[in-house]
Amino acid sequence: MVEQRIRNHHLIQKIMSPNEASLLIKDGMNIATSGFTLSSYPKAVALALVERLKKSGEKIRIGLYTGASVGEELDGILAQEDFLCRRYPYQTNESLRKRINAGTCAYTDMHLSHFSQYVKNGFVPKVDLAIIEAVAITEEGNLIPGNSLGGSPTFVEMADQVIVEINLSHPLGFEGMADVYSVEKPPFRKPIMITKPDDRIGTTYIPCTPEKIAAVVITDIPDQGKKFAAVDETSQQISQHLIDFLKQEVSAGRLPENLLPIQSGVGSVANAVLAGLKESSFENLWVYTEVVQDAVLDLIDVGKVKAASTTAVSPSPEGLKKFKENIDFYRDKIILRPMEISNNPEVIRRLGVLAFNTAIEADIYGNVNSTNIMGSRIMNGIGGSGDFARNAYISVFTTPSTAKGGAISSIVPMVSHHDHTEHDVMVIVTERGFADLRGLCPKERAKTIIEKCAHPDYQPMLWDYFERACKGKFQHTPHVLDEALSWHKRLLDTGNMKAE
Amino acid sequence: MVEQRIRNHHLIQKIMSPNEASLLIKDGMNIATSGFTLSSYPKAVALALVERLKKSGEKIRIGLYTGASVGEELDGILAQEDFLCRRYPYQTNESLRKRINAGTCAYTDMHLSHFSQYVKNGFVPKVDLAIIEAVAITEEGNLIPGNSLGGSPTFVEMADQVIVEINLSHPLGFEGMADVYSVEKPPFRKPIMITKPDDRIGTTYIPCTPEKIAAVVITDIPDQGKKFAAVDETSQQISQHLIDFLKQEVSAGRLPENLLPIQSGVGSVANAVLAGLKESSFENLWVYTEVVQDAVLDLIDVGKVKAASTTAVSPSPEGLKKFKENIDFYRDKIILRPMEISNNPEVIRRLGVLAFNTAIEADIYGNVNSTNIMGSRIMNGIGGSGDFARNAYISVFTTPSTAKGGAISSIVPMVSHHDHTEHDVMVIVTERGFADLRGLCPKERAKTIIEKCAHPDYQPMLWDYFERACKGKFQHTPHVLDEALSWHKRLLDTGNMKAE
Repeated sequence: MVEQRIRNHHLIQKIMSPNEASLLIKDGMNIATSGFTLSSYPKAVALALVERLKKSGEKIRIGLYTGASVGEELDGILAQEDFLCRRYPYQTNESLRKRINAGTCAYTDMHLSHFSQYVKNGFVPKVDLAIIEAVAITEEGNLIPGNSLGGSPTFVEMADQVIVEINLSHPLGFEGMADVYSVEKPPFRKPIMITKPDDRIGTTYIPCTPEKIAAVVITDIPDQGKKFAAVDETSQQISQHLIDFLKQEVSAGRLPENLLPIQSGVGSVANAVLAGLKESSFENLWVYTEVVQDAVLDLIDVGKVKAASTTAVSPSPEGLKKFKENIDFYRDKIILRPMEISNNPEVIRRLGVLAFNTAIEADIYGNVNSTNIMGSRIMNGIGGSGDFARNAYISVFTTPSTAKGGAISSIVPMVSHHDHTEHDVMVIVTERGFADLRGLCPKERAKTIIEKCAHPDYQPMLWDYFERACKGKFQHTPHVLDEALSWHKRLLDTGNMKAE
Repeated sequence: MVEQRIRNHHLIQKIMSPNEASLLIKDGMNIATSGFTLSSYPKAVALALVERLKKSGEKIRIGLYTGASVGEELDGILAQEDFLCRRYPYQTNESLRKRINAGTCAYTDMHLSHFSQYVKNGFVPKVDLAIIEAVAITEEGNLIPGNSLGGSPTFVEMADQVIVEINLSHPLGFEGMADVYSVEKPPFRKPIMITKPDDRIGTTYIPCTPEKIAAVVITDIPDQGKKFAAVDETSQQISQHLIDFLKQEVSAGRLPENLLPIQSGVGSVANAVLAGLKESSFENLWVYTEVVQDAVLDLIDVGKVKAASTTAVSPSPEGLKKFKENIDFYRDKIILRPMEISNNPEVIRRLGVLAFNTAIEADIYGNVNSTNIMGSRIMNGIGGSGDFARNAYISVFTTPSTAKGGAISSIVPMVSHHDHTEHDVMVIVTERGFADLRGLCPKERAKTIIEKCAHPDYQPMLWDYFERACKGKFQHTPHVLDEALSWHKRLLDTGNMKAE
């Protein structure tokens, strides 16, 4: 086994226990790890570290850099002990979220396409140590990644030292899926020569040298993937409206019959929206996205998707089992790229990607909040939604029209935090319908959004706000400034956005 | 003369008076014109049209599509008569702004890099007629552009008919400056093979056929360029802080000694900021921008700038005179590109552009308002600032710390309209100093912005807001929602943002 997984003989001497490897982690370090949306993040060393420190009573504070969200065995346990002083660029962990919202962990929520650049350019503190979960190490010391790439190639390149966690739960069959290409520093950058989602331009491994590898740890702890919520009626309706919109575009000659490469956000709603394509008449689809979840695997299974480019394969536990068992079927249909390529504006715009992302709330002018509930409380982060929405051929945001059993309207006079501005949002879809905002001026957008997307319980309130705003002096983007955020304030005070 | 300017003999028969050509314009049409930041927009036909309709009393309503802002002889006179029902994607004209803010002209404020795509993809109503100001028409019917390209190649491609205004005030020496390349429709797009600002990948003319040209009009009305305001002390201080920041980056090894290609926004402040580079120690600079104003010409004159890529040369009247008189000197140092290339995220990110844009206001978390005063009143538009800021190596926003003699703070608790979010703003510069926000979490950003950029008159109020917000329940992006926009409300009520 070991010879298959660690093909450089010198590195066999670097095998150590997770506890020994964890001694490389020192107070004050900035540690960058593999992992993107709960796939292929390192677990063993962090678990050993926390166990050891809990016993000794020692406290440390470290910075943690990842591709995107990582699981309980990394973000969770470190946050619970308050060991994280800084976190880039995305997270979804409940314990960590509590720390961030309590103000004890500094979190910078970034466009994922920006983060590798920030690390390479020295715009964030230097990476001291990288911990990379891998399938195997080649004779040359290069790393075969698991089911995500994220920021790993950049972190290995920029770190002083690397700990490799060889995870035996990843089949060796993962090898060959990755296409690792590193964007140079300017001013001598070359074009990224991808013109089809399945073009290969790099290596199947993360370049590394044996000298950089300080420790190799053997583990078999599987990724703790999330189950998706069952597809409910609301998600089905959203999916159907999105499909109706796409059909309209094909009929009008604005989209080819097999559409354009699809990106879809993370989570249950995003998964449900894509799942709807399985029953649709669309065929020969391409996917160019950052996360492949169950719906894309299913679409590949039935032959609807020809190939998918992504930086992570993060299905449900059942989906992951299927993926591993059938890796020989999937390997040439899924191309795993570093997030600086999967989310690169150059490639996204060139391919003409259709971007489907989820909103926490949208306002009547088409601005979208993806991150901060009530303007202050971080949920997850912007992730790749901005990379895709800004550069997409068509950018769509989906959300149920209400939340919390109707106490919250997802369509509001003004969003309480802006992640995607009116300039970047082309279509909004709720279970009520779709609002096609392309080419509309702000007042036209407001009328369309209120009419097509808002919940009937909130439509009268929205019309009332808009009509009163339109009586103001300036008519381009009419607002009543001292009421614009009053719905949120009322929710904070009374638990309900509805006026008494 | 005519043979030099109209080299296709058949087209000489299409020469007609502006008045005759204006008969091609019908009520309800969507008309797309050349012109970008008051350079090389058509004038003669619009002037004749309005004069004729004023005499006859006839009213029309048309849609006007341009590259960016056009002058009084187009936007101004059409808006004064209320002939514009719809306007894309940018404007700066006072008469038009009044119509938009009065709600009688629908204006959609768009990223300039998006607009050509919208027209090609059919996301906005079809272009019926294009009016293109040109230096000459070639034997094949192709158009030699004046001192801007903007959306002209797209408009000619998509319009049913084209009116060409041959403007004799443009020297024939402009020929050779343009590099016209049209981005294909997906899914078969190729990389845009620009790796240096002065790479040439296209033609020196706008492709057109004689059959498409419905009229040729000869004119000599010069562009009505704007004078820049004299460089004042505030602008000088902003410029000096920006230069200090750039020197810091060079010292830290994050920028090469000759920096990276520079983009700079439009207007007096932007011009003054760049002018400061003339006295700096920086040399061998490149420019990759959307508008070349006086400062860039001056930097070329003194040999500090090697070459400038732009979609428009729009200097002051004196600068334009110098430019025309020395066109043989400038021609191979300035590359005129269509705005879908000058503003293309692919090229901007590849080159690692340094983006310097101006803000109307910024908030303590680093969100920027570039467009809507008090949330509702459109000023100009986002223009290319988003194309550059999002994709830049470093994105900088500049603004004086106060406006209206101190009655307005440009640093506020929450901007009243969001054009650039926290995710896209790396550095804010006022005359007080620069705030380097890279890698900071929201609360760190707030402290840095208040300390480095806010005016001392407003610092106590900002600290007070921030400290009270920090006592709220959620600490990621602390806000007091019912006060977040209260400064704007107070200004509307009392004429001053200062608390009584």
